[in-house]
Amino acid sequence: MSIKDIGEFGFIDRISRGCLIRPDSIVKAIGDDAAAFQTGADRLTLVTTDLLVERVHFLREATSGFNLGYKALAVNLSDIAAMGGIAREAFVSIAIPEECSLKYLDDLYNGMKRLAAEFDVNILGGDTTSSKTDLIINVAVTGTVKESEILLRSTAQVGDIIFSTGYLGDSRAGLHLILNNTPAESAALKELFNAHILPKPFLREGLFLAACRDVHAAIDVSDGLSSDLGHIAKESRVGARLDAHRIPVSPHLHTFCSRFGFDPVDFALAGGEDYTLLCTIGRDSADKVARTYLSKFNQSLYPIGEITDTGRIELVEDNDKVRVITPTGWNHFKDWNDEYRSL
Amino acid sequence: MSIKDIGEFGFIDRISRGCLIRPDSIVKAIGDDAAAFQTGADRLTLVTTDLLVERVHFLREATSGFNLGYKALAVNLSDIAAMGGIAREAFVSIAIPEECSLKYLDDLYNGMKRLAAEFDVNILGGDTTSSKTDLIINVAVTGTVKESEILLRSTAQVGDIIFSTGYLGDSRAGLHLILNNTPAESAALKELFNAHILPKPFLREGLFLAACRDVHAAIDVSDGLSSDLGHIAKESRVGARLDAHRIPVSPHLHTFCSRFGFDPVDFALAGGEDYTLLCTIGRDSADKVARTYLSKFNQSLYPIGEITDTGRIELVEDNDKVRVITPTGWNHFKDWNDEYRSL
Repeated sequence: MSIKDIGEFGFIDRISRGCLIRPDSIVKAIGDDAAAFQTGADRLTLVTTDLLVERVHFLREATSGFNLGYKALAVNLSDIAAMGGIAREAFVSIAIPEECSLKYLDDLYNGMKRLAAEFDVNILGGDTTSSKTDLIINVAVTGTVKESEILLRSTAQVGDIIFSTGYLGDSRAGLHLILNNTPAESAALKELFNAHILPKPFLREGLFLAACRDVHAAIDVSDGLSSDLGHIAKESRVGARLDAHRIPVSPHLHTFCSRFGFDPVDFALAGGEDYTLLCTIGRDSADKVARTYLSKFNQSLYPIGEITDTGRIELVEDNDKVRVITPTGWNHFKDWNDEYRSL
Repeated sequence: MSIKDIGEFGFIDRISRGCLIRPDSIVKAIGDDAAAFQTGADRLTLVTTDLLVERVHFLREATSGFNLGYKALAVNLSDIAAMGGIAREAFVSIAIPEECSLKYLDDLYNGMKRLAAEFDVNILGGDTTSSKTDLIINVAVTGTVKESEILLRSTAQVGDIIFSTGYLGDSRAGLHLILNNTPAESAALKELFNAHILPKPFLREGLFLAACRDVHAAIDVSDGLSSDLGHIAKESRVGARLDAHRIPVSPHLHTFCSRFGFDPVDFALAGGEDYTLLCTIGRDSADKVARTYLSKFNQSLYPIGEITDTGRIELVEDNDKVRVITPTGWNHFKDWNDEYRSL
């Protein structure tokens, strides 16, 4: 039997058994954006880790070292953001093929250091080794969060309003451009490239949301809106209803979809690597939190739907028809290879 | 310019610049077996990470999944041991090529879980993804140590006696057997295989040594005795003199060296991945610590030399001649590829 038969999440379920042998002081083990465990009174340590492999997560010839380093750290910072935490220390393991130039590696570390400095994160250690074929980067990041403020996937409540901190689908459109060698010939396409290549970690925003008492659950959009909302629904044992017309689609994505004949909402639902935060907020406080958020960050917190008790993810389409959607974001062992194979 | 021109340690020096941007609360950044930072009163959190890449660190066809998983965790536990810490949480990133069987992966996680259970370590998270060619495993481990007891590389003192917690060179001999497809036809060869494949993390021993006030410095032998003692000498700004006849060489390594025509002391000096601890202990307490160690663990703490003020690593040979030795352990970008290339 191969891992393709059970998929990424089947595999994670399988390997998770027997992993937690000392449950005291563990607040969150496998199954959220980061693990969380007690290291002080009302203080949790968060740890997250992400592995980027050449030809799976990036094409070296299509990615500058700077952008690759930036993104390798950004995706981890996004996980800390989704827990409502402050990012603290980063650990970088890298396996380097012989023909990789020192200039590329310097750029890669410069990309990481630029982002690390922006968010006050130390690069505190790691491992350096060689590789036969692919450039490989694993980044692990520690963070910290007050135990009373941690944002989990498992604590959404029926009636909560679901928000996204930014546009959805842009990153997937950027990936499509990269995979099809489409040049960034307009400002709109450039924005889509950047959404894929230089995603913004919503750390300050996550910290603000964590401090709001009525923000109940959060996740970052790495696998795609439908998948990641599916994680919240599954872990919280709830359902969700999304309003198609409220899903934030950027003007750039509209331009892209008109040109290439895609549906923007489908792109937003199935796309991945947006790294916006999805959060659910108690209905009575939702407006107030969104208004405070707007005035504090000068960005919208977009309401996109609400948490239901159906156990399903439903989409209310523009004609008021309700469509049940199955998570269609990335599953590394089923879809992702296929995407690259179609090149 | 390529990384081969500056070597692994030149590369680490190069990338380390600008990594520490928030030095408060950081006790040890890049440059020891693990990073250490404050997370409580007199409590430090330790973090270490190691990346294993197929065809660089292991040959999948020559390594069972169980042994690979065991070792991927063991090398990290050894780093925590070398800081005098207690290992706590492990985070496993894995990139899996399509043809890798689920059975192999189950075995791999079973190897990790067996060792994790032995040392009361949770596997608390990670990342799973696909890979085009090589199986890749990154393990990060957190630990904890009292700030007053942490064992660093940089605190050896002139006059200290240098000890090893076990035999040196066995692991390199085991690797030699694997690379040359020599079957484990005798008990002696089997021991050498096992030294390479199932290294013992000296966690309990490290914890004991950390609690002894006169144990000044420690490192685990991953690159090889001469290299790792070189790290202590460089970081502590001291030298060291080793007595060739006191270097602990196992009977199995003697058998191996007789048969294949190698010098056991050279193997012990240049070999790597022994994962014994080297520690330096104040001369006046050294005997007492070694005696207590023996009675507590029923294992010898082998004295192999002393810390000097020469800045050099010297070897007193059996004829009393003193030879200056240059570190000859592994340097990933200079030696390691060559070793596999010679297959």
